[in-house]
Amino acid sequence: MSNDKTALVVFSPSGKRGRFPLGTPVLQAARELGVDIDSICGGRARCGRCQVEAVEGNFAKENIISSPDHLGGMGEAEQYCLQRGRLKPGHRLSCQAAVEGDVRIDVPASSQVHQQVVRKDHEAHDIEIDPVIHLYFVEVPQPDINVPEGDLQRLLRGLETDWSLTGLSWEFSMLQELQQALRDGKWQVTVAIRDGHRIVAVWPGFRDRLFGVAIDVGSTTIAAHLCDLISGEVLASSGVMNPQIRFGEDLMSRVSYAMLNPEGAGQMTGAVRRAVNDLISDTASRAEVDTGAILELTLVGNPVMHHLLLGLDPTPLGVAPFALATDQAVDIPASELAIELHPCARAYLLPCIAGHVGADTAGVMLAETPWCEDEISLIIDVGTNAEIVLGNRERLLAASSPTGPAFEGAQISGGQRAAPGAIERVRIDPETLEPRFRVIGSELWSDQPGFRESLGEQGVTGICGSGIIEAIAGLYLAGAVLADGVIDGRTADRTNRIEADERTFSYVLHDSEPRIVIQQGDVRAVQLAKAALYAGARLLMDRMGVERVDRIRLAGAFGSHIDVKYAMVLGMIPDCDLDRVSSANNAAGTGARVALLNRASRAEIERRVRTIEKVETAVDPTFQQHFVDAMGLPHSTHAYPSLARVVELPRPGPGASPRDSRRRGRSRRRR
Amino acid sequence: MSNDKTALVVFSPSGKRGRFPLGTPVLQAARELGVDIDSICGGRARCGRCQVEAVEGNFAKENIISSPDHLGGMGEAEQYCLQRGRLKPGHRLSCQAAVEGDVRIDVPASSQVHQQVVRKDHEAHDIEIDPVIHLYFVEVPQPDINVPEGDLQRLLRGLETDWSLTGLSWEFSMLQELQQALRDGKWQVTVAIRDGHRIVAVWPGFRDRLFGVAIDVGSTTIAAHLCDLISGEVLASSGVMNPQIRFGEDLMSRVSYAMLNPEGAGQMTGAVRRAVNDLISDTASRAEVDTGAILELTLVGNPVMHHLLLGLDPTPLGVAPFALATDQAVDIPASELAIELHPCARAYLLPCIAGHVGADTAGVMLAETPWCEDEISLIIDVGTNAEIVLGNRERLLAASSPTGPAFEGAQISGGQRAAPGAIERVRIDPETLEPRFRVIGSELWSDQPGFRESLGEQGVTGICGSGIIEAIAGLYLAGAVLADGVIDGRTADRTNRIEADERTFSYVLHDSEPRIVIQQGDVRAVQLAKAALYAGARLLMDRMGVERVDRIRLAGAFGSHIDVKYAMVLGMIPDCDLDRVSSANNAAGTGARVALLNRASRAEIERRVRTIEKVETAVDPTFQQHFVDAMGLPHSTHAYPSLARVVELPRPGPGASPRDSRRRGRSRRRR
Repeated sequence: MSNDKTALVVFSPSGKRGRFPLGTPVLQAARELGVDIDSICGGRARCGRCQVEAVEGNFAKENIISSPDHLGGMGEAEQYCLQRGRLKPGHRLSCQAAVEGDVRIDVPASSQVHQQVVRKDHEAHDIEIDPVIHLYFVEVPQPDINVPEGDLQRLLRGLETDWSLTGLSWEFSMLQELQQALRDGKWQVTVAIRDGHRIVAVWPGFRDRLFGVAIDVGSTTIAAHLCDLISGEVLASSGVMNPQIRFGEDLMSRVSYAMLNPEGAGQMTGAVRRAVNDLISDTASRAEVDTGAILELTLVGNPVMHHLLLGLDPTPLGVAPFALATDQAVDIPASELAIELHPCARAYLLPCIAGHVGADTAGVMLAETPWCEDEISLIIDVGTNAEIVLGNRERLLAASSPTGPAFEGAQISGGQRAAPGAIERVRIDPETLEPRFRVIGSELWSDQPGFRESLGEQGVTGICGSGIIEAIAGLYLAGAVLADGVIDGRTADRTNRIEADERTFSYVLHDSEPRIVIQQGDVRAVQLAKAALYAGARLLMDRMGVERVDRIRLAGAFGSHIDVKYAMVLGMIPDCDLDRVSSANNAAGTGARVALLNRASRAEIERRVRTIEKVETAVDPTFQQHFVDAMGLPHSTHAYPSLARVVELPRPGPGASPRDSRRRGRSRRRR
Repeated sequence: MSNDKTALVVFSPSGKRGRFPLGTPVLQAARELGVDIDSICGGRARCGRCQVEAVEGNFAKENIISSPDHLGGMGEAEQYCLQRGRLKPGHRLSCQAAVEGDVRIDVPASSQVHQQVVRKDHEAHDIEIDPVIHLYFVEVPQPDINVPEGDLQRLLRGLETDWSLTGLSWEFSMLQELQQALRDGKWQVTVAIRDGHRIVAVWPGFRDRLFGVAIDVGSTTIAAHLCDLISGEVLASSGVMNPQIRFGEDLMSRVSYAMLNPEGAGQMTGAVRRAVNDLISDTASRAEVDTGAILELTLVGNPVMHHLLLGLDPTPLGVAPFALATDQAVDIPASELAIELHPCARAYLLPCIAGHVGADTAGVMLAETPWCEDEISLIIDVGTNAEIVLGNRERLLAASSPTGPAFEGAQISGGQRAAPGAIERVRIDPETLEPRFRVIGSELWSDQPGFRESLGEQGVTGICGSGIIEAIAGLYLAGAVLADGVIDGRTADRTNRIEADERTFSYVLHDSEPRIVIQQGDVRAVQLAKAALYAGARLLMDRMGVERVDRIRLAGAFGSHIDVKYAMVLGMIPDCDLDRVSSANNAAGTGARVALLNRASRAEIERRVRTIEKVETAVDPTFQQHFVDAMGLPHSTHAYPSLARVVELPRPGPGASPRDSRRRGRSRRRR
């Protein structure tokens, strides 16, 4: 097929093909055809990122007889890379190998510019690796006494010559490093360029490592993921308690602290920034990465966390009209947050959406991208408030529902955060009312052999949100809790776990130390919380004009612990096929990682946040009505047809059924 | 002339005119006609900057009968301003006064947007006040629970509504101030916007003061001028010794210190930054301005000062190829220089031109603007090196000549810097060789009554550059120094001030304590310095292809002390009409002030610096030849026709004449 002058080159997997003069470097052929091959060193056999593999064989369909020999022999540069382990055996450097005959060339995923990081369980999408910062190796012209051009201007000239980069700006601390880097690197340096236009770092010689950290600043815990910005790999992850907890367990108590103490907001800002610093140091040292080599930081958090981290006053968020300081993304030097990374490192905080719908929700949205689907997604991030996003390709709505802290185990007798020792799963025998349960930290159920031992010294410490939900749902299914939420004293004839209090009854879940009891007040707290959550979702569905959603994603720690069936038994969430209800795990943190690894995602979320319809539940009369209606527990398979396939719901008891309360609500309104 | 519906309005001095519906505010009429009237408050009767005066009279030429009554009566807002002294009696606020009949309106200079600051002596031009930062008073919409728009976004909306400003970015510390400012100012704030697009500061309520500092970082002294960026006025000026002097008297000794001491550059950077901080504090406290209210800083300095101030390594400037770190202007947060002003204050350093031609020369250029003239200007900034700029509208050239420190009084017996106590002026009687002199700090000549007393306790301390120049020139004109620079021992018969040394002679200028003697070596040092200066100027003239320059401006302290005639007698500068040779005083500092007060001047100097032709004297054989030729003292009225009108130059003596040496030089080259 080849003739004296040109040869046929076919690239896979793209299938792009063309004829090139013999001697054409493979990288050049690829570029001319628009085939995606990565390079940091600009074709100098330094970075080893442009590896390809020539295939042996007669490909009739492509009309080509290909041979690895058609790329000629390996030169010195390739041999060197091979010996140093930078070049895989059988691979060639496309910047060095030249076309000497017809050849079919396979470009492995690792050599493609925009690699995908394959998603983990719970994650909705793969992430395309295209961070806001890229590395460029460059040869800089040496100074010439007759041309008084500065080091910086010669660097810019080199970047234009080698990479066609023009109109670049620069960080001052890069300029301060430049003189030494040029001389140490013998006029060869690697620069990091942010956003395609700003030189933010310089190192002598060739370099191909670049790091960033994605951070989820939760009210309770702060989690960090240190990523290699070139491979997209998570190199290390760490979590730490948010030290602001000593100023208040939940968000509103922290806002009160700021209101009551002139230095309060400043103290909390200092505390969270120190924690983030320590967390990054810890993560970096685990991955054996110098924090000075970290150039990018992305952060998510609810509005109060967002404001406190930024040193903004959170108190306007505590009272109507709940005014944010800014609802745009914030992109600032990390040093402004007193976070010690590379001097030019920047921190990108995803935008807050409304006074109660924060950058964490923006992160969840970015992880879930409901705007890519025709199907209608309902995404719920359960915390002290529940942030709710509803929508699809056509339309997006967001709201926050004031669930209170019950789902986080607070203000529940025996309640605690989801942490080792907490009862997270509960099953109650519908006849005997005997419970069995699972505890965080153990894989065993309480009725399995070795359960006690598996808990270690800590034993059982309390019950977390998912545990209380499942316990109440189990009691409801067993008839021990009625549709109006009353613990039915009549079931005491079936078990001695039902105990009489002053005017109400309790259920003893755990009779050894510590004694864990579900009291009537706990059921009420969960009813309030689930009614708020349901009413919020329902309000958004009303606004969107839909009666059903196609899928439900539950984000946050709560969402990852709960069995979704029990959430539906309690009427927390609207009806949906149970196999379309799933956990999105820490979707907010995933969103931070998406923003870290993919530059275009930032513009995407900023655009979506501007157009999403924000619904304020606090002032909406429909929300109040839905809330009142949703206080009871579902008794009707009519309201939950999907659930009917899985469990049998109790018949209406003597207490108020949801339908009853709805009727009463309506009639009250008519009066 | 007026009818029921409209009235004629004529503005002076612009002469712009138009008919407007009765009731039209004067400011609106002005804007529609494109008449330049200032406003910070946007027409809210707050800033008092839009004052105008309605004129009484029948103006036949303009065809208008005008009356102040045709602007109606003063409203409450104007009365209030009048009482508070914000409105001059007889003036009206153009934002409040409405057109009620034909009227001729005078816009005083103080109400025009682009006021001129009238130049001082020595300054080449008026400065148009249009700084890089402007103030805007704005009413910000209040938060609304149904529209979760951030404080920042509502500020941006207010700026768009009130000022048609769009696409604005913002400094993070502004965001941190914004919440409080909005609430303290009851949703009215004043913002400072830099470069037309970046919000850098916010204050509650109305504000009309804005400050900046222009700084000239000289090797010997640092001078600061604190300016009101709205009026352009210099509020206070201060100077201080450069504390780097303890690391080395002249530039090259400081570069050596940095080469020999690993921490040397850092020590000098710290020293100069502390000095700048202290100087600004001092200047601000004199003007009773809070340093936190200073938002802009402009700086000039030679390349070594520029690099040390920026924390850049100056050592490449000490050896060929004399590579600058950057030859562009540097515009960075002032905090990067550890200078404590407003947190968003920025520092603008004018560009360096070449390794020996610094931002100080750029400042001189900006003060002098030789590119505005058809005439050819020669601008010389004399220091340890002489920076020379030659050119006009068509073409500009720059070079640095290695004059050495003689012009600064260094390496001269009895020499010192131009400071109180230094002999700065010298006249020598051509017959008796008796000197008379003037000393810095006194207005009297040494032969006037009360001279001794006028010096105070300090007395005479030494002789500075201008003094030594004038002394040698005087001796030359008296025949005591020959054309080849030899002190002629034969003149000892005329005076006992000529003393014999080992093989040469000296002239005793000051016989009391301290004894100040002009030695043969001093004459040699001045010959070397003046030959370098002349050769540099001559080289540029060769390159430009001109034999004469139209005007000469001498910048720097030296230029302000010397009588230019004596500079020409010694052959320091090329021939030029003596009344076209003048001092530009501290033109570098003036340039910094121009860049501070006028935004467009920055782009101008950046553009000029890019296109100016840089000539490197160190490697130019023509320079070497000119240098050798210029070692002698001028003897020929042919070479200095302008001088011939003023003094009679000595006839050629027995030593080498310039013409002789030029001939010898040429023959050497031919060999």
